[in-house]
Amino acid sequence: MAAFEQVVEAKGHLIDSGIMSLILDRIIEGHCTFKIERFTVGRTNEEESTTLIRIQSQNQEVLEQLLDVLVPLGCYLTQEEDARAEVAPGDAQVPDDFYSSTNHVTFVRRDGEWLPVRDQRMDAVIRLGADGACCIKLRDVRRGDQVVCGHAGIKVVPEFKDRERKEFSFMASDISSERRVFVAVRQLGELFRQTRADGGRIVAVCGPVVVHTGGVDGLCRMIRGGYVQAFLGGNAVAVHDIEHALYHTSLGVHLDTGIPAHEGHRNHMRAINFVNHYGGIVKAVEAGALRSGIMYELVKHRVPFCLAGSIRDDGPLPDTISDMIAAQGRYTELLRDADLVVILGTMLHGIGAGNMIPSSVRTICIDINPAVVTKLSDRGSSQTVGIVTDVGMFLHLLKDQL
Amino acid sequence: MAAFEQVVEAKGHLIDSGIMSLILDRIIEGHCTFKIERFTVGRTNEEESTTLIRIQSQNQEVLEQLLDVLVPLGCYLTQEEDARAEVAPGDAQVPDDFYSSTNHVTFVRRDGEWLPVRDQRMDAVIRLGADGACCIKLRDVRRGDQVVCGHAGIKVVPEFKDRERKEFSFMASDISSERRVFVAVRQLGELFRQTRADGGRIVAVCGPVVVHTGGVDGLCRMIRGGYVQAFLGGNAVAVHDIEHALYHTSLGVHLDTGIPAHEGHRNHMRAINFVNHYGGIVKAVEAGALRSGIMYELVKHRVPFCLAGSIRDDGPLPDTISDMIAAQGRYTELLRDADLVVILGTMLHGIGAGNMIPSSVRTICIDINPAVVTKLSDRGSSQTVGIVTDVGMFLHLLKDQL
Amino acid sequence: MAAFEQVVEAKGHLIDSGIMSLILDRIIEGHCTFKIERFTVGRTNEEESTTLIRIQSQNQEVLEQLLDVLVPLGCYLTQEEDARAEVAPGDAQVPDDFYSSTNHVTFVRRDGEWLPVRDQRMDAVIRLGADGACCIKLRDVRRGDQVVCGHAGIKVVPEFKDRERKEFSFMASDISSERRVFVAVRQLGELFRQTRADGGRIVAVCGPVVVHTGGVDGLCRMIRGGYVQAFLGGNAVAVHDIEHALYHTSLGVHLDTGIPAHEGHRNHMRAINFVNHYGGIVKAVEAGALRSGIMYELVKHRVPFCLAGSIRDDGPLPDTISDMIAAQGRYTELLRDADLVVILGTMLHGIGAGNMIPSSVRTICIDINPAVVTKLSDRGSSQTVGIVTDVGMFLHLLKDQL
Amino acid sequence: MAAFEQVVEAKGHLIDSGIMSLILDRIIEGHCTFKIERFTVGRTNEEESTTLIRIQSQNQEVLEQLLDVLVPLGCYLTQEEDARAEVAPGDAQVPDDFYSSTNHVTFVRRDGEWLPVRDQRMDAVIRLGADGACCIKLRDVRRGDQVVCGHAGIKVVPEFKDRERKEFSFMASDISSERRVFVAVRQLGELFRQTRADGGRIVAVCGPVVVHTGGVDGLCRMIRGGYVQAFLGGNAVAVHDIEHALYHTSLGVHLDTGIPAHEGHRNHMRAINFVNHYGGIVKAVEAGALRSGIMYELVKHRVPFCLAGSIRDDGPLPDTISDMIAAQGRYTELLRDADLVVILGTMLHGIGAGNMIPSSVRTICIDINPAVVTKLSDRGSSQTVGIVTDVGMFLHLLKDQL
Repeated sequence: MAAFEQVVEAKGHLIDSGIMSLILDRIIEGHCTFKIERFTVGRTNEEESTTLIRIQSQNQEVLEQLLDVLVPLGCYLTQEEDARAEVAPGDAQVPDDFYSSTNHVTFVRRDGEWLPVRDQRMDAVIRLGADGACCIKLRDVRRGDQVVCGHAGIKVVPEFKDRERKEFSFMASDISSERRVFVAVRQLGELFRQTRADGGRIVAVCGPVVVHTGGVDGLCRMIRGGYVQAFLGGNAVAVHDIEHALYHTSLGVHLDTGIPAHEGHRNHMRAINFVNHYGGIVKAVEAGALRSGIMYELVKHRVPFCLAGSIRDDGPLPDTISDMIAAQGRYTELLRDADLVVILGTMLHGIGAGNMIPSSVRTICIDINPAVVTKLSDRGSSQTVGIVTDVGMFLHLLKDQL
Repeated sequence: MAAFEQVVEAKGHLIDSGIMSLILDRIIEGHCTFKIERFTVGRTNEEESTTLIRIQSQNQEVLEQLLDVLVPLGCYLTQEEDARAEVAPGDAQVPDDFYSSTNHVTFVRRDGEWLPVRDQRMDAVIRLGADGACCIKLRDVRRGDQVVCGHAGIKVVPEFKDRERKEFSFMASDISSERRVFVAVRQLGELFRQTRADGGRIVAVCGPVVVHTGGVDGLCRMIRGGYVQAFLGGNAVAVHDIEHALYHTSLGVHLDTGIPAHEGHRNHMRAINFVNHYGGIVKAVEAGALRSGIMYELVKHRVPFCLAGSIRDDGPLPDTISDMIAAQGRYTELLRDADLVVILGTMLHGIGAGNMIPSSVRTICIDINPAVVTKLSDRGSSQTVGIVTDVGMFLHLLKDQL
Repeated sequence: MAAFEQVVEAKGHLIDSGIMSLILDRIIEGHCTFKIERFTVGRTNEEESTTLIRIQSQNQEVLEQLLDVLVPLGCYLTQEEDARAEVAPGDAQVPDDFYSSTNHVTFVRRDGEWLPVRDQRMDAVIRLGADGACCIKLRDVRRGDQVVCGHAGIKVVPEFKDRERKEFSFMASDISSERRVFVAVRQLGELFRQTRADGGRIVAVCGPVVVHTGGVDGLCRMIRGGYVQAFLGGNAVAVHDIEHALYHTSLGVHLDTGIPAHEGHRNHMRAINFVNHYGGIVKAVEAGALRSGIMYELVKHRVPFCLAGSIRDDGPLPDTISDMIAAQGRYTELLRDADLVVILGTMLHGIGAGNMIPSSVRTICIDINPAVVTKLSDRGSSQTVGIVTDVGMFLHLLKDQL
Repeated sequence: MAAFEQVVEAKGHLIDSGIMSLILDRIIEGHCTFKIERFTVGRTNEEESTTLIRIQSQNQEVLEQLLDVLVPLGCYLTQEEDARAEVAPGDAQVPDDFYSSTNHVTFVRRDGEWLPVRDQRMDAVIRLGADGACCIKLRDVRRGDQVVCGHAGIKVVPEFKDRERKEFSFMASDISSERRVFVAVRQLGELFRQTRADGGRIVAVCGPVVVHTGGVDGLCRMIRGGYVQAFLGGNAVAVHDIEHALYHTSLGVHLDTGIPAHEGHRNHMRAINFVNHYGGIVKAVEAGALRSGIMYELVKHRVPFCLAGSIRDDGPLPDTISDMIAAQGRYTELLRDADLVVILGTMLHGIGAGNMIPSSVRTICIDINPAVVTKLSDRGSSQTVGIVTDVGMFLHLLKDQL
């Protein structure tokens, strides 16, 4: 007979979201057994279900490990207990049984009251303070902070699939290149318009492939149309965009004629030298020297942008933030209150941005490589909808929808 | 000191085609040494080069193996000798040292005269007869046929890169998804028009992905515009096209709304049942029952087509040729005198077609998967120019060029 | 108010298999609404759940389309009705509302009795005869056959995930190259031994990549150890294996030294010529001429094999079955009563085999290309467990487990 | 008649390296014409060739652009002129016609003397100073520095393929997963031993996939055997290695049993917290708290390492360098005098390292994704030899060779 047990409760669209199935899977995988004490099923698509599950194990440690997995899935302990807060023993240090956050909406119980957690993001710790509960990065923990530990008094509300179904059915389907992309173009155009009509914020996260594949015009149209409220990328997308604006090449290929200017990385270094001369992108635009392209439109339309550095950067441009702590900080600011994040041809910055946003932010990833989409989802940004196609062509077609 | 040697000659655009470099590479890899006895370089882009190379080895067998490799690269023995013909000992049987053909233009010396080889294709044997020299498949060899063996008296003219440079520069560059596809669309449109203006034949080789990705309209426009002189595919492209024409789905996905009709392989079986009812595609069109789509346009415009069967086929349709010997025969007929072969989203049929055509036939392969293009080139169809992009979008854009 | 409705029932591991979630998804996607009239949940991992769902629609046709989707998921109409059988109007022809089978265990009701369907496979029709119910291919339907139509009186039992969990947990996880393959090697070795200990049949489905990547030794060990009861492939795997056995090359690369014998397709044609000389593979082995390799071991150990032709074949070998109807027939025979199917580096033959087996046959697919595994699952062989790795290395390591 | 012309000379293994072919290709693509005034061919594999080419154009600008491309290929102007040095107008600024370096050995002419350029790397500028010529990054240029501009007086010696041929023939062949990896394992083992026997430095550049695929043991053996003189990576490889050492999981998957501890990113955050507690990796090892794994072995064997930050990092670890300028500096230091660079499962850090080394450094890239290898080569690190295989299995097999 199992000596250790714990009763958990969960509530929501447990069946149609697949969450109930995941919960039971995890219990079995975790070498525990279960009894479903209660299961009240939502009779219609609108009604929620609730369940009460008794979990048993031979071993307390195994049970604790299982709870590490179940709490993020929306299970909460039925005992009416407050969350346990412990004191951080040093800067950037927390007790070993700290609660590591998901990107789902979370509540923490203090003095019998369920506090919503602010700044929700994955892989953070939850600090309890005078101002309530909020997610902070481990590195921002200061000695003496009250940090949530263990599993009691924590309620996670996993993002349910419900929403997508209603309006975004195509994209919710599998990651596949063998789907009619035209439907996706139309749906994304519609989503852009609707998001803006509702006063929402759209953040574009772009890699240099946007430039190489001829997506500059499409993205510029998006910016001019007011469909980009913030732009995130790295040094490369800006360098290639400026190279293209100045010399009509990208990585040494003439984009208009397609004639390769082989070994021609020189233009790319010339573009950096050009910007260095003006002291930055904004100044180059203001001086009338840079007159077209993505970066130009961003400056002209006062769309804030952040270029994060990387180990493979040339230059970098004066505008590129070389310090990753600072760059993550700026990314986080620009992603705050985002309603829609569109990731175009970049795994690195896409994962970076995905790490920072709650799962309630609609996220679209467009890439010719199916592995990029898979990787984003695997890393926790499971709300990501992937469209496997040629990014430049996609933006070209999208242009006509805006 | 090397006891065995052979002097070979080669002629053509040896340097700018990279052939000279390949020849020297192969000699080193083949554990032989060389002396370049003569090298007369073409002084301009129009002039040819000639070279005379003395090859030495410790071992006759190693030398022979090297010649197996050099002859296909355009080297020919300097001794003025006729090709050696041997008698086939049985049906589908040849002596072990038979000459295995390349897909390049080839001449064979008989009675002091250089005969052009007809029906050039790779992996064939060369039969000498009253009607001269021609490539035949090993299976078509009959006991008593005269078959070319050894290396003497054979001249191969490898396809040089020269041509592409002049008019098709973009596509000649590397296989890469990070290139501006719009240039390729424009160039391909131009190539189509020019090929037809010159009275040339265009053969389309298509996989079902053309249907799944929304390329039906584009391909239909190509057919109606007279840009398809023959159509090669398998059972699947026809089934999915007809399914789409009848039920607006493809593999159970509604292509117009993007709504997945999951588990919906039924429509695909219904489409086969529908065609079975009429006794074939042509009859279904003639009966007015099938009224749109690729197969419809092919029938209406009297474009000959061949659907080759495969081990994974459902059905198959009455029009699908289930016997591979027969299907290869029909493919070969339809590819005869082709000037341009366009392979759209199919590795299997693309390699099949590539095997049958000489290297002088311009070949374009469009696929979202870079491995498909690489594989085609690796297997000997090195004239293939690859465009890595979304097939449906590509056809959609191409439509406006025709 | 919805004018049309249908009540369906389902039973089994509805939650932990994810089936319940799928059912509700499909209802919503199908533009219908539901009420869950009853849901009795299995309290433990062993107990089954049952549910009764009332589905409503504005439109009879939409409701019928939804049932096309729900019946394969295990839903059955609650009215106690026999299945409706209709007469086939011609050879290879059935009424348009025929029931198209899944690869899951199925029962059909006749005269109030639930008959198990024999020869279960996907995309077939169900024929009712004196001998009960069985799946037959559309092409095998004869005028006058009684064929099941509509949705009444059909019960499908979708394969539940339950089984995998217990013994094969690793492989059941996502398709990913970033997983420790060593665990998979060990588990597969164990599975082989256990399958044989239970008297089970293992069928290997192999592509030529097994030879190119150095997997010959590993596969030969499998055959000698009695772990292969049937071998399915195409012409290429046999040609390359025999080429390797005779000349130690594969596609012109010396496998032992890695030195490329470029342009060296000659050996591959020599291998075919060699087999033609003996009149077939078995005769070449019996004559003592072919003395090693996969084909040799198959012949020596009297393991039946089938080589299916394709449009891209060279040769083919005398043993290759060029007619696809015949090849599918032979594949089907060799797959009958298979307990484990292992697909090694071939999408074409893997999908072919997958089409022919019920979902209860454990299926493992090993390929370096993640798309192959995805494609197999997408096409309905959802029981397939994928291992993304180097096939040759995998077989090399597996050798030590047998 | 062409009004503008320039005569260039080149020397070396022009034919067998393919360089001569590239030069002529670039002239044609650059819309110029050529006459080969002289071509003296190396008669044997040891002898060099020399050529003198007269290039003509209608347009001076076009001719200059062509020279931008030809100089990196080893062409130098025949006029006996010194290189032109110009003064940098500001920090990180150079004249627009600055010479942008390749990663090939380069000489610059000053006062009639050819100076070798130190610290050769791609995309740098060449500074002339009292201490001769050296490559510096654009950002390190200081106002008043003398910087090489134009094309005169610059000689580049492109890395010839010659070397690989002799000893590393296998790997020199195409990037392909369909090659026998066992040969590569043996050759790499041999190369490691020989490099060390010659006192050479081996630098490993690793991504976290080394840990996920079970390569930890193999890499640890390499470190213990003295085959790693420096280790470059990012935050992730260290975090996952330490997670694995402490909890036997990697990204929440138990590597030994393969049982997924889903949603289990907690261990990965615990590992960071653990290291934070000790104040760094070295201190955690010294305290006896971290007792196995890659990072442990590096510390124990005093192998210097650099972990470069990125926008997607969690933590980061105290040892991770968050400032990219600093990280690039440290990478450069550790890559100085490297003889062999082995890139294991990382595109980001592989490209970063590739940017910093001259083309004479042998570079091996092992990755399951062929695109990674292609990308490295495309970006200029054309000396890179790629092996497409499972990294973990490769390291596992390599272990037995060391």
